[in-house]
Amino acid sequence: MTRDEIQQIRSLGDKRVREETGLFVAEGEKLVRELMASDFRAQRVYYTEGDFGPDTERVSPKEMERISYLKTPTNVLSLVEIPRRRFDPVALKGRLTLALDGVQNPGNMGTIIRLADWFGIRDVLCSADCADCWSPKVVQATMGAITRVAVNYGDLKAMIEAVGGPVYGTFLEGEPIYDATLTHGGVIVLGSEGRGISPETERLVTRKLFIPPFPPENTGSESLNVAVAAAIVCAEFRRREMVK
Amino acid sequence: MTRDEIQQIRSLGDKRVREETGLFVAEGEKLVRELMASDFRAQRVYYTEGDFGPDTERVSPKEMERISYLKTPTNVLSLVEIPRRRFDPVALKGRLTLALDGVQNPGNMGTIIRLADWFGIRDVLCSADCADCWSPKVVQATMGAITRVAVNYGDLKAMIEAVGGPVYGTFLEGEPIYDATLTHGGVIVLGSEGRGISPETERLVTRKLFIPPFPPENTGSESLNVAVAAAIVCAEFRRREMVK
Repeated sequence: MTRDEIQQIRSLGDKRVREETGLFVAEGEKLVRELMASDFRAQRVYYTEGDFGPDTERVSPKEMERISYLKTPTNVLSLVEIPRRRFDPVALKGRLTLALDGVQNPGNMGTIIRLADWFGIRDVLCSADCADCWSPKVVQATMGAITRVAVNYGDLKAMIEAVGGPVYGTFLEGEPIYDATLTHGGVIVLGSEGRGISPETERLVTRKLFIPPFPPENTGSESLNVAVAAAIVCAEFRRREMVK
Repeated sequence: MTRDEIQQIRSLGDKRVREETGLFVAEGEKLVRELMASDFRAQRVYYTEGDFGPDTERVSPKEMERISYLKTPTNVLSLVEIPRRRFDPVALKGRLTLALDGVQNPGNMGTIIRLADWFGIRDVLCSADCADCWSPKVVQATMGAITRVAVNYGDLKAMIEAVGGPVYGTFLEGEPIYDATLTHGGVIVLGSEGRGISPETERLVTRKLFIPPFPPENTGSESLNVAVAAAIVCAEFRRREMVK
């Protein structure tokens, strides 16, 4: 590999460079094969062993170590085109959708995209200050879910209003989720790790929920990690659909 | 601060040094005050502003930056004695307990301790290869829960057998958790990020559970993050206690 090539791949850790080039990095045999089998277009595939078809490039383990974003590099790394999707609020009506208001930790972002996939949620709306879903850390943390879940960045308020319908959010003063009526579709808002849901987004919330601690009077702990709260809320929405 | 002092604090990122000195690092006003108000003993407290009582040491923001393990240092950092607890399986009988089999990501470890606290689970059993709960990253990720949840490291099999009672674990071939009978107490086993529950620990599992995806035939996604699975399982155990 040339120095320029290695440098280009290393620079894709930078969001600005990803936006300029329209490329993101995906690593690992399972993820790369999933991407190649999907609508995504792999622009380049570098591998140390295995067979990834024509127009792929065999590199040495030393080169792989230099281009990989993982502590323990795998046998394959690809540069994949970031899909250009148009946000279509009409398609989201009546479905369950997540709205992330400033979720900044890449691990949380990836974990949320992964659990959205598990629970059949196809769309995640993100405020502009959320972690970028195309960063190497997030892509890897989604464990392939990024190929099936559409993540839309933009004006969160405008997106939520365009989708319409009930808007749920978790608040300490909310109604215990197990007592609440939950609709089939709706937007579930999740706040940032440090500040929770912003006042501007809170104004859009029509149904405040609360995940009860145990025992209910347990007041020592004050909060749950955002991905954990997302998981419990999504699981409860889906449980209601399955257990009548 | 002397160079040696700074060096000592920096070295506490290393597990071996924590074991030798019996100290861990805790940062941030809320966490430090929680620790000082608890049974924990803060051996030293360094602060840039505020009042943390006698025998504490004011340092410059520049010094704080050098000793802090956080990207954005706070106003206070303390060195706290690691409590010496004896594992008492008898006290755990009839209670809900988590058993972690090789959970290696510090963020997952901290998130699991935090949610254990939320759900009134006072004990977490860990195999020796789990992330160390006294590492700076885990301590911070617990958001103070480490002061209320006892984490025991050792021979996981021996600890689970000593506690006795039903042993739950999540497996793709398990019974959907919403159909399963759940007992008041028991051990919930959670596997490592990469390999899941080890065959040796699996042999101890008496009740295999499964978190259903949605829709149930959704087979694209294959797994959930371990902290997310822990959250959904714990929430369901506690929901059953609250909603009869």
